[in-house]
Amino acid sequence: MPASQAAHADAPSPGDATPDLRRRYADVRGRTCALAAPLSPEDAQLQSMPEASPAKWHLAHTTWFFARFVLDDPAVIPEGWDYLFNSYYVGAGERHARTLRGLVSRPSLHEVLAWRDEVDARVLRGLEDGRFDAAACDVLVLGMHHEQQHQELLLTDIKHALWCNPLKPAYRSDLPWPRLAAAGGPGPLRWLRREEAIVETGAPPWPANAAPFVYDNETPRHRVLLPAHALAERPVSNADFAAFVADGGYRTPGLWLSDGWDTAQREGWTRPLYWHEDGVREFTLGGWRERDPHAPVCHLSHYEADACARWAGARLPTEAEWEAAAAGRRIEGNFADAGAPLHPVATAVANADAGTPSASVPSHPLGLFGDTWEWTGSAYAPYPGFRPLPGTLGEYNGKFMSGQLVLRGGSCATPAGHARASYRNFFAPHARWQFSGLRLAKDID
Amino acid sequence: MPASQAAHADAPSPGDATPDLRRRYADVRGRTCALAAPLSPEDAQLQSMPEASPAKWHLAHTTWFFARFVLDDPAVIPEGWDYLFNSYYVGAGERHARTLRGLVSRPSLHEVLAWRDEVDARVLRGLEDGRFDAAACDVLVLGMHHEQQHQELLLTDIKHALWCNPLKPAYRSDLPWPRLAAAGGPGPLRWLRREEAIVETGAPPWPANAAPFVYDNETPRHRVLLPAHALAERPVSNADFAAFVADGGYRTPGLWLSDGWDTAQREGWTRPLYWHEDGVREFTLGGWRERDPHAPVCHLSHYEADACARWAGARLPTEAEWEAAAAGRRIEGNFADAGAPLHPVATAVANADAGTPSASVPSHPLGLFGDTWEWTGSAYAPYPGFRPLPGTLGEYNGKFMSGQLVLRGGSCATPAGHARASYRNFFAPHARWQFSGLRLAKDID
Amino acid sequence: MPASQAAHADAPSPGDATPDLRRRYADVRGRTCALAAPLSPEDAQLQSMPEASPAKWHLAHTTWFFARFVLDDPAVIPEGWDYLFNSYYVGAGERHARTLRGLVSRPSLHEVLAWRDEVDARVLRGLEDGRFDAAACDVLVLGMHHEQQHQELLLTDIKHALWCNPLKPAYRSDLPWPRLAAAGGPGPLRWLRREEAIVETGAPPWPANAAPFVYDNETPRHRVLLPAHALAERPVSNADFAAFVADGGYRTPGLWLSDGWDTAQREGWTRPLYWHEDGVREFTLGGWRERDPHAPVCHLSHYEADACARWAGARLPTEAEWEAAAAGRRIEGNFADAGAPLHPVATAVANADAGTPSASVPSHPLGLFGDTWEWTGSAYAPYPGFRPLPGTLGEYNGKFMSGQLVLRGGSCATPAGHARASYRNFFAPHARWQFSGLRLAKDID
Amino acid sequence: MPASQAAHADAPSPGDATPDLRRRYADVRGRTCALAAPLSPEDAQLQSMPEASPAKWHLAHTTWFFARFVLDDPAVIPEGWDYLFNSYYVGAGERHARTLRGLVSRPSLHEVLAWRDEVDARVLRGLEDGRFDAAACDVLVLGMHHEQQHQELLLTDIKHALWCNPLKPAYRSDLPWPRLAAAGGPGPLRWLRREEAIVETGAPPWPANAAPFVYDNETPRHRVLLPAHALAERPVSNADFAAFVADGGYRTPGLWLSDGWDTAQREGWTRPLYWHEDGVREFTLGGWRERDPHAPVCHLSHYEADACARWAGARLPTEAEWEAAAAGRRIEGNFADAGAPLHPVATAVANADAGTPSASVPSHPLGLFGDTWEWTGSAYAPYPGFRPLPGTLGEYNGKFMSGQLVLRGGSCATPAGHARASYRNFFAPHARWQFSGLRLAKDID
Repeated sequence: MPASQAAHADAPSPGDATPDLRRRYADVRGRTCALAAPLSPEDAQLQSMPEASPAKWHLAHTTWFFARFVLDDPAVIPEGWDYLFNSYYVGAGERHARTLRGLVSRPSLHEVLAWRDEVDARVLRGLEDGRFDAAACDVLVLGMHHEQQHQELLLTDIKHALWCNPLKPAYRSDLPWPRLAAAGGPGPLRWLRREEAIVETGAPPWPANAAPFVYDNETPRHRVLLPAHALAERPVSNADFAAFVADGGYRTPGLWLSDGWDTAQREGWTRPLYWHEDGVREFTLGGWRERDPHAPVCHLSHYEADACARWAGARLPTEAEWEAAAAGRRIEGNFADAGAPLHPVATAVANADAGTPSASVPSHPLGLFGDTWEWTGSAYAPYPGFRPLPGTLGEYNGKFMSGQLVLRGGSCATPAGHARASYRNFFAPHARWQFSGLRLAKDID
Repeated sequence: MPASQAAHADAPSPGDATPDLRRRYADVRGRTCALAAPLSPEDAQLQSMPEASPAKWHLAHTTWFFARFVLDDPAVIPEGWDYLFNSYYVGAGERHARTLRGLVSRPSLHEVLAWRDEVDARVLRGLEDGRFDAAACDVLVLGMHHEQQHQELLLTDIKHALWCNPLKPAYRSDLPWPRLAAAGGPGPLRWLRREEAIVETGAPPWPANAAPFVYDNETPRHRVLLPAHALAERPVSNADFAAFVADGGYRTPGLWLSDGWDTAQREGWTRPLYWHEDGVREFTLGGWRERDPHAPVCHLSHYEADACARWAGARLPTEAEWEAAAAGRRIEGNFADAGAPLHPVATAVANADAGTPSASVPSHPLGLFGDTWEWTGSAYAPYPGFRPLPGTLGEYNGKFMSGQLVLRGGSCATPAGHARASYRNFFAPHARWQFSGLRLAKDID
Repeated sequence: MPASQAAHADAPSPGDATPDLRRRYADVRGRTCALAAPLSPEDAQLQSMPEASPAKWHLAHTTWFFARFVLDDPAVIPEGWDYLFNSYYVGAGERHARTLRGLVSRPSLHEVLAWRDEVDARVLRGLEDGRFDAAACDVLVLGMHHEQQHQELLLTDIKHALWCNPLKPAYRSDLPWPRLAAAGGPGPLRWLRREEAIVETGAPPWPANAAPFVYDNETPRHRVLLPAHALAERPVSNADFAAFVADGGYRTPGLWLSDGWDTAQREGWTRPLYWHEDGVREFTLGGWRERDPHAPVCHLSHYEADACARWAGARLPTEAEWEAAAAGRRIEGNFADAGAPLHPVATAVANADAGTPSASVPSHPLGLFGDTWEWTGSAYAPYPGFRPLPGTLGEYNGKFMSGQLVLRGGSCATPAGHARASYRNFFAPHARWQFSGLRLAKDID
Repeated sequence: MPASQAAHADAPSPGDATPDLRRRYADVRGRTCALAAPLSPEDAQLQSMPEASPAKWHLAHTTWFFARFVLDDPAVIPEGWDYLFNSYYVGAGERHARTLRGLVSRPSLHEVLAWRDEVDARVLRGLEDGRFDAAACDVLVLGMHHEQQHQELLLTDIKHALWCNPLKPAYRSDLPWPRLAAAGGPGPLRWLRREEAIVETGAPPWPANAAPFVYDNETPRHRVLLPAHALAERPVSNADFAAFVADGGYRTPGLWLSDGWDTAQREGWTRPLYWHEDGVREFTLGGWRERDPHAPVCHLSHYEADACARWAGARLPTEAEWEAAAAGRRIEGNFADAGAPLHPVATAVANADAGTPSASVPSHPLGLFGDTWEWTGSAYAPYPGFRPLPGTLGEYNGKFMSGQLVLRGGSCATPAGHARASYRNFFAPHARWQFSGLRLAKDID
C-alpha cells in the first residue's frame, strides 16, 4: 500500500516522533535477527508444514513489509523478491505459493540478512531526515507490530521443524531452565465469580489522535453483556492435563466435539503435541526436557482444550469473559525476552499460591499474560462496527475471520511489550504448534 | 438411549397426550413417505457426496430412531440394521461409515418401507396402550422433529443427486410453478433500524413443565446486548445477486473471506450452485426452470453470502439480531407443505411491497420464514448456560458446535410447523446444497 | 465407428453367416440379462470403487456398443445416453466420468432393459434382412466378445459391491456348491520342464479371410525364444497360499516387490481379498462359504502372487511360457456357464491327480483354463508388429498397454467359449477383485 | 550387509587390487564433492518432490553405504545417522521417510562433508592395510558404482529443485555452452534395418572370476529372439519434437497411452518439462538457454516419448533391440565429465552427418551413449535366470521390477565410465526430470 493512501488524522509531527521511533524500530528489527542467530542456513530454510514458514522467509517477509509499504521504492526490492516475500496481500500483487516457501534456497540466508541491513539503513535514514509523513509513520508502527508477530511464529515454526528431525535437535542448548519445584504445587483450583454485567471490551481504532496502537480486529470499543460466570484462577497445568490423559480423555468420544474427535483419530493424537511417550519429558526449544507438572500445559489444539474443559465439568471462557478479567491488570509474565526460557514455567502460579495460602476465594486471576496463549470458545469474528484498515493493509486481519478461534494473553514466545488485554490471536481449531493452552470457565446461575 | 434414562419432569399423563400424539406421529411419518414417493428404488439409493445421504437411508434412519430410542426393543431391529442406520450416536454403538451409505443396496427400498410400517404400527399401538412413560413420549416428540429435519435433507440431498446426473432429471414434474411477475418487483432496499438494547433470546429448556418443544441448542433463554444496527426489510433477491455476479463479484478477492476465496477458486465457482450458465434458468426440484428475479436467491455458501453482503456495503446479521427481529411474528411463509412449489417464490416481498407503496421506513421485516434459510455471521456455539440433553441424545446438537455457522428462518423445503424464531440451523461455510440465502444488515452509529 | 469404415477383407457373405450369427447374438445378449436377473434395481446401480461399474451400466454400455457401432443410427440412442454409456472411446465423443457411474439413477434398470430389447430387435431384424455389410458384421462379432468381457466384469463388480455392504449379502443363494473332499488333495507339486525353444505365439489378425476371432492385442502371430524353464502342473491352491500366510508372508518385506510392499502396508493386506478373518470362510457370489483347501486360490493382486511365488522359490511364468503350455490343449474348465458355481473348485486337479497316481513327471498341465486367471510376470505390451484395429475401435486395447500385467486362462466368471490359449487379459498389479490366482514357474539351467 | 556374507569366488587378492582401487575410490568420491561444490548449504537441502533427494542426503547416503556395508563398524556412524541415511534397505533396519529428507537441517552440509572425509580416510587406510577381504572389496566396487548413480541423481534433483524457485537460478553460471550451428542440421531420418535374429543380451554375473562389473539386473547373459525391425540412426531432436508439439501432439488423445493422456491432462503438460513457454529457451543447469534444435530432446516422460513415436508412425525400441545395436560399439559421448556442459548437445549427430553426406543407408547408429537416456518400450523385468545379489544388497535392483520402464545409453549427467551397452536404467512412465529422450524404431516385414 502506498503510504500516502493510509488513513490518518492529526498525527504527531514526524519531527517529534522519530527519535523514539528510530530506537524502537532498531530494537524490534534487531530482536528478530537475534532470534534467528542460532539457526544455520539449513535450519533457516525449513518448512515443516504448509501452515509454517522458514525462518529465512520470516526475515525476508518482514523486511518486504517495510520496503513495500513504507519505503515504497521498487528499487529497494530485488527482481523477483516482491513475488517471493509477499505473504497474502492480494492488493500488492501476485505471490509465491505458501506451501513452497521451503524450496527457496536462493536468495540465501546471508543475502536476506544483508537486505535487512540495507532496508533498515534506508528506513532509519528516512526517519532521521523526516522523510516519512504521518501516514507512513503509522505504517511503520504497524510493521513493527507485524514483525513481532513473526518473531513468535519464527520460534513456533522452527520448534516444529526441528521436532520433525528424528535427531530432535535443540534450537538453543543454552536456554535457562528453572529448577522444578521439589514438591507442592498449587492447591485445588479456585474460581473467580462474576455476576451478569455489561462491560466495555475492545479498543478504539488506531491510528487516531492519541490512540495507542491496536490492530483493527480489536476495534471498536463496544459494550457486551457478560452472563454470570466463573473463571479459573490459573491456567490448566501439565499435571491437570496428565490427569485428563490418564482418565482416558483421548479415548472418550463423548468429551469431544465431533470434528475434534475425527481429527484426533485421524492424526492418532494421544497426548499434547510435544509430550514424549515416556510420560516424563517434553520437547522444548532447548531439546528434550523434563516436564514441569505445575507449569501451564501447552501445544494443545482447540479440540483438546475443549475436551479437557468438558472432562473437568467446565468450558472454555469466551473472549469477552477473558478480556473483562484481564482489563486493567499489569501485563507481566513469562515472555520471549532476552534471557527467557522460551517455555512455560510454573512461576506465576507458585508465587500467587504462596501469597494466598488459606483463602478459598481468589482476589484476581493468575498467569493471564505470557506462558501460553489461552484458547477461548469464541469464534474469530468482527466486533460490531468493525472496519478494516483502508487499502491493502485492510487484508491484515479481517479476511481471516472464518473458521478460527480466538486465543488470548500471549505466550513465552510472544515478545515482551506485544501483549495487551484486548489482543486477539486466532488459529484454526486443529492447530497445536503454537504455545496454546487453556483456562477453565463455568456457567453459574 | 433407553427411554427410561431421559430426563423428564412432570409430563402430561400419557393417557391425555397420546390421541393427539398418535395423529401427529402418523402425519409426520406419512409425510416422509409422501416425499419419497416420487423416487424410484435407484433414486432412493443415490449419495452424491459425503455430506448427503440416500433417501432410503433417511427413511431407515428416522425409523431406527424410534425403534432404538422409543421402542427400545432389539427384536424390532433386523440383524445388522442397527449398525447401518445409526447416524452419529457414538453412545448407541458402532455405525457404518457415512461416506458409504450409497453402497447399501440391501435392504431394498421396499424392505425399508415395510420396516417403517412395522415400527409405526408398534409405536401407534404402544401409544394406544399407554405403554410409554412420559420420558419415552418426550423422545417420541423429539423423534418427530428429528424426522422433519430429515424431510428437508431428503429434498436437498435428492436435488443434488439428480443434478449430478448429466440428464438433469426432475424430482417431480408436476410441481406448481408461480407465474413470473410481468414487471416491477420490489423498490429500493429499505432498512429496519434498531437502537442498542438488551433482548432476550433463545428458549427455555424442553422437556419441562409446559415448555413447548425446542432443541437443546436453542436453550437456555438468555439476555444479549444488541448493538445499534439496521436489518434489511427483505432477503437478497436473484436480481440483486445477479448484479453482484455481473459486477465481477466472483472475480474480486477483496470482497471475500480468505477461506472463501480459496474455496471459490478451487471449486471454480462463478455463480450460485444451481444457476444455469445461460444466465436465465436454474435447476429446481421440478427440473430446469426460468429464474424469478424477485424471488430470494438461494443455494449460496456462507462465503458467497458474506462476499455479496460486503459488496453491498453491508454485512450478515448476527443470529441475535435476526431473532430479535423475528420474535413474536407470525410464522408464515413458503414451506414444504403438500402442494408447495419446493422452491423460493417472490410472493412475500411482492405482497408486502404492494402494501407500503410510498413509505421509506418499513414497519416490519418480510420473508423471514420459509423460502430460504438466511446465513448469519454467527458461529454455531453454545449459549451461555447451555446443557445438552442427558444420555445419548446429548449428541444431537452440542458436539457439532465447531466450524459451522447459524442459519435462521426455514426454507421452502422445511416442513410447515417446523420453523420458529429461536430455531438454529447450522452448516459449514462451504455448504451450498441447502436452500440457503441471505438478508443484509448494517452497523449504525 | 461407422461400420463402413471398419477394415475388412473377403468376409463370408451375410446371407450365409447370419442365421448362426443371429442365434449367437441372441444367446450372448440373453446371457447378460440372465446374469443381471438376480439383481434388484438398487443392486444394479452399485459402484463400489472407481475401477468397477454398476451392473446397469454394463447392461447399457454393451447395448450402446451395438447401437453406436453396428446400427449407427442416432435415433436409436435416447438423448444424453450416448454421453452416459460411452466408456472410453474418445473417438466416439465426450463421455461421463467413470467414477460417477453409480450416481446415474435415471434411466432406471427397467428402462435400460427395455432399451436392450429394442436394440436387440433392430439388430436381429437387420441381420434377418441382410442389412449389415461384412464390416458391420465384424463389428457385431466384436461386440459379442465385448459383451462377454462385460459379463465377467458384471460378476466381479457386483461381488465387490455386495462385499462392501456390512450385511455381506449373496448375489445368489441358490448357487451349486461342490462338496469339499473329505481328505487327500493333490500330492507334492510336480513340474513340467521345457528346454529352450523357439515357439510361435499369438494369433493372426482378425478380421481376415478365415481367421477366427481374436482381439487385436493377441496379434500378430510371431516367434519367441523361450528359455529353458519349468511350469507347475497345477495352480497354487488355497492350502498352498494359507501356508504362505502362516509363514508370515504378509509380514516379510524381502518377499515383495517394493511397490507391492508399500501397497500391502497402506491397504493393510493380511490375506486374499475375500478371505474371512476366521481363517475358514471366504466370501463368494453365494455369500460366506467354507474355503476349499484344494481349489485354486483367487482374488490375489499381482503383488501377492509375485510374493507367494518368491516365497516358494519360484517365479511367475511369462505369458509366452504359459501360452506355449496351453497351445493346442482342449479349452475345458470351470467357466461361468448356466449352472456353474461361479467360484473356483478343486475338480480339475483332483481328477488329474487320480489319473497319475505314481508318476513324478506330469504329462501335461492341469487347470489352465477356467477357475482363476493366472497372473504372469509379463507386462502388457504390444507384440512385435502389433497393429490396432482401424478407427475408433483401435482404442479397444492398445492404449491400455501401460502399467498393467497379463493374466491368462480365464476364470469361473468367464463365459464358456470366451477363453483361448492366446487370450490376453490385463489388470494393474494392485487389482484384486478379479478371480485372479497364479501358477508357479522356475528357471532351469 | 556384513561384507563377509557377500557372495564371492576367486577374487584378485587385495594386495594386488588395492592400489588401483584406492585411486578409483578417491576419484569417484572426489567427483561427488566437486558436483556439490557449487551448492550452498541451503541448495544442498532442497527436496522438491518425493522422488528427489537433497544433495546433502546424496552426499551422506553414499557415505553411509561404505560405512555400513564396507567398514561395517557401528562406531563410524554417528547416533541416528544410520536411520537418516539408509535409503530403502529394509534388511539394514528402519529408516527415515523418503518424503521428509528435505526437513533434515542437522547434520549440516559441513558436518556431512566432514563425515565423508572421515569415512574416506578409513576406507583408504583399510585398503592400504589390506584389511578388506575380497568380498568387502566387491562391496566397495559396488559402492563406487552406486555413488556414480547418485552423482547423476544429484544433478537431476538439483536441476528440478532450482527450477521450482521462481527466480530460476542456475546451478552453475560458468558451464560451457556450445555455439549453435548457424544452419543445416541432420537430413531426413535414416533407418538401420535388422532381420530376425537370435542375439545374446545381458551380461554374466558379477562378482565372479574375471567378470567385469555389472549390476545384478543386467544378468545373466541370455539369448533373445529379435524380430525384424528398423532402428533410427539418431535420437529424436528438439526440432523433431517441436514439430510434434506444433502438430497438436499434446492435444490429440489418439496418440497417447490412456494413462499418459490422463497424466498429461491432470498435470497440464503442453511441452517438455523444462521448455520455456516462449518457444525458444529451455532451463538448463546453467539457467535459461536458447534451445538447440539439433540436440536430442530431453526431459520427456515415457508417455510423451511414446506419443511422439506414434505420431511419427514408429514405436519405441525394445531394450533388446537397443542393446543389440549398441553391443560392441565404443562408449563415447557427452557425459558428465569435468568441463562438460551438463546438457545434451548436437555434436554426435552433426559429426556423423558430415561423414555420410549422400548415403541413404547408415552404417551404424549415432548418439547411443551420453546426451540423453533413451526410453525403451520394455518394462523393467527380470531376465530369465535373474538372481539378485545375496543378502541385503539383493534389495539393490530386483525389488523395483514393477511399474517401471527401461532406459538405455546414459546421459549428459551420467559420469563418464558409468555407461555400458548392457546397462539398464529404469523409471516410472510419468518421470520427466531425468535427462530422458527417445530414439524411434519400426516393425518391418
